Amino acid sequence: MVTRTLARNLVASRYDDIPQAVLHEAARALLNWLGCAIGSSRHETVACALAAVTPFSGPSQAAVLGRAERLDILRAALINGISSHVLDFDDTHARAIHPSAPVLPALLALAEWRKVSGAEFAHAFVLGVEAEERIGLSVFPEHYDIGWHITGTAGVFGAAAATGRVLGLNHQQMTWALGIAATQSAGLREMFGSMCKSLHPGRAAQNGLTAALLASRNFTSSEQAIEAPRGFAHVLSTKFDPAVITDGWGERYELMSNMYKPYACGLVVHAAIDGCIELKREHAIQPSDVERIELKVSPLVLELTAKTTPRSGLEGKFSVYHAAAAALIHGAAGESQFSDAVVRDPEVIALRDRVSAQAAASLRRTEAYVNIVLKDGRTYSRHVAHALGTLQRPMSDADLEAKFRGLTAAILTPRQIDEVITLCWQLTALEDAGALARAAVPRAY
Amino acid sequence: MVTRTLARNLVASRYDDIPQAVLHEAARALLNWLGCAIGSSRHETVACALAAVTPFSGPSQAAVLGRAERLDILRAALINGISSHVLDFDDTHARAIHPSAPVLPALLALAEWRKVSGAEFAHAFVLGVEAEERIGLSVFPEHYDIGWHITGTAGVFGAAAATGRVLGLNHQQMTWALGIAATQSAGLREMFGSMCKSLHPGRAAQNGLTAALLASRNFTSSEQAIEAPRGFAHVLSTKFDPAVITDGWGERYELMSNMYKPYACGLVVHAAIDGCIELKREHAIQPSDVERIELKVSPLVLELTAKTTPRSGLEGKFSVYHAAAAALIHGAAGESQFSDAVVRDPEVIALRDRVSAQAAASLRRTEAYVNIVLKDGRTYSRHVAHALGTLQRPMSDADLEAKFRGLTAAILTPRQIDEVITLCWQLTALEDAGALARAAVPRAY
Repeated sequence: MVTRTLARNLVASRYDDIPQAVLHEAARALLNWLGCAIGSSRHETVACALAAVTPFSGPSQAAVLGRAERLDILRAALINGISSHVLDFDDTHARAIHPSAPVLPALLALAEWRKVSGAEFAHAFVLGVEAEERIGLSVFPEHYDIGWHITGTAGVFGAAAATGRVLGLNHQQMTWALGIAATQSAGLREMFGSMCKSLHPGRAAQNGLTAALLASRNFTSSEQAIEAPRGFAHVLSTKFDPAVITDGWGERYELMSNMYKPYACGLVVHAAIDGCIELKREHAIQPSDVERIELKVSPLVLELTAKTTPRSGLEGKFSVYHAAAAALIHGAAGESQFSDAVVRDPEVIALRDRVSAQAAASLRRTEAYVNIVLKDGRTYSRHVAHALGTLQRPMSDADLEAKFRGLTAAILTPRQIDEVITLCWQLTALEDAGALARAAVPRAY
Repeated sequence: MVTRTLARNLVASRYDDIPQAVLHEAARALLNWLGCAIGSSRHETVACALAAVTPFSGPSQAAVLGRAERLDILRAALINGISSHVLDFDDTHARAIHPSAPVLPALLALAEWRKVSGAEFAHAFVLGVEAEERIGLSVFPEHYDIGWHITGTAGVFGAAAATGRVLGLNHQQMTWALGIAATQSAGLREMFGSMCKSLHPGRAAQNGLTAALLASRNFTSSEQAIEAPRGFAHVLSTKFDPAVITDGWGERYELMSNMYKPYACGLVVHAAIDGCIELKREHAIQPSDVERIELKVSPLVLELTAKTTPRSGLEGKFSVYHAAAAALIHGAAGESQFSDAVVRDPEVIALRDRVSAQAAASLRRTEAYVNIVLKDGRTYSRHVAHALGTLQRPMSDADLEAKFRGLTAAILTPRQIDEVITLCWQLTALEDAGALARAAVPRAY
């Protein structure tokens, strides 16, 4: 029953019922996602995948964000899904999955092929996130603990729901779309650390869009794909709480639990970075004046990021010592602070070796105490109760704009950057949401 | 280790080491598969899927078997994978999966795009079957019992291995190809009875080929994708016997356990059909002379196929009564004996109502006793110890030719049919295996 009920809810939802705050959150998620996808568009993972599929692509229907290539909409969904997640800098739901990476690539590609208004786009995105998060949470955390990468396995439902909505599927077809999504659900956590991690949202976007397209042609599936004894939930999890999928529908929105990362590394390091950046800014600290940095953090931080001598940019993301040193020297912790060059910079290394970290079980993983001790004996201290980007202390719209500018500065012109930002904030007023994709590629002058 | 070992075995295999009997079995499987795919090419499931993906297809690189359309190789693999399985008339390994449907569509599409000799093609197919069957059997039957459609979940490895071999992947790349396949492994048994059942081998073919193409561009995955704690085997099964994947490599071949169906319905009905056809032929029985047909069969037959009043062709496949009656009247049990028209034919219905079946626990599922009692009191009896198509009593090459002719008569000209049959038997001598695909589509005259 729950598959059919969810399908009915998706089909019956009305744009006017979506609260303004939720629609604004959709615009924030869109801006954040576009920055991540554009900012990763030169990444080796994206280049490999693009080279592999380009010889088979159909008509030039949809943009590869941040690049000149255009592909058919299913291939564009795949590649933009990969670039969404390759830096692990995309949004995260407070409890489970990365919501935008599987949904927005499918939706934006479809919006280029078939005219979709900004309001329809925002509405479909909200519904896609609702579907994927509710289905994901109905089997979480057991599903994740078994070894499934939930951004892939649940994300495919989000892409199917969102694009199915835009394609105007009826109740029966939406039921089939969810079923066709269910039987393509895939992605193993074993792939973490390889290029396949970002393949997962790419495949989810492509397969979810395929599910909606097939259903629109009356391609049939089981109508109890989620709840049947041999359906998604029971085959891919040991826990299933179907009420999570339907309870409070239209009363609360999963998108309101969405979080954005200000820094290009795992969440657990963020509070320490916050403290370093804030103290540097407030006291105009010169790196050369610093004697040492003392951190007190959650034990999880040392479990995950205790590399004392990282050798590459990627390893730098797993070193709270590097993160603190780079943040103090650069006053930032974007992708460039986790480049090979910065990780190997003698000035950064010298300060990194004077960072110490102590675990305290009483601290949350998004909390930290930071002491900066100067050579002249002065000490500046900061207690970061909640890292920037958590639900308790969300990134502001201006923070998201700054993040977008940082990610796209090397790829788009300043004028284009302003244009994309404006389009995002005006999302629900756009006549044609495809304009977002056309604005998000480098232009020839 | 087992993923890397399998990859090494796949890469190191030499054509000259493959026994002639195995290569001949490859040709038999190829002929049987081509008949199924061509014969299903007008099916609604194929038409739906084709309509859904055609607007996004790339260059005309590969044939849709039995049809005029040409698609990019990844879409051709998808559609031909669907048509392979839509009648459930394709081959079956004695213990687990349908081996050809996920592998041959990928391989043949690739052979049209990139010149592949018949010997390379046969060799790659043998290796693909080896990979998918061994991986499938390493987690079987628990994996299947949980609810996974093993033809989809294991088939993706077969497609990746076979096409990876043709693409000339090295050991490292083949390891990645198996990993990229693993993280796309999908397909729920809940979909049985819907169009999604045949989507599974289609997706396996397409995703396996994608895995090989990505790996050829050095797209990375885990290198322990099958055996790691969060890899394929442990996440998708409660049983894992890695030795099944590697033991006796090159000494036995899974393709030698391949079975072909002479009749267009589930295996359990075949022995009863055999008895009816054989007795009719031997004694020139006229249907109008028959008083009744008495069957003694395995209890499984009545569990699965006890519909006494089937209303459609599809329901006829689940009625041992219809199957026996139609076989006696037509002397055959091909797809046309399971059409709506034959199921609703008054002559067939009249005889069907005089078929009785009794279960006997001592009988194998491929065994039956058939009594035909004539109105004049004569009775003809037959004990079918092993149905035609089992390993104990395989279909002959001539049987496979006849099956191919029956499936393709309405689609190809007699001359084309002869041509495809000849190409199959000459497989290992072909300079260009792509000729098979070009011969398997209707020609304009």
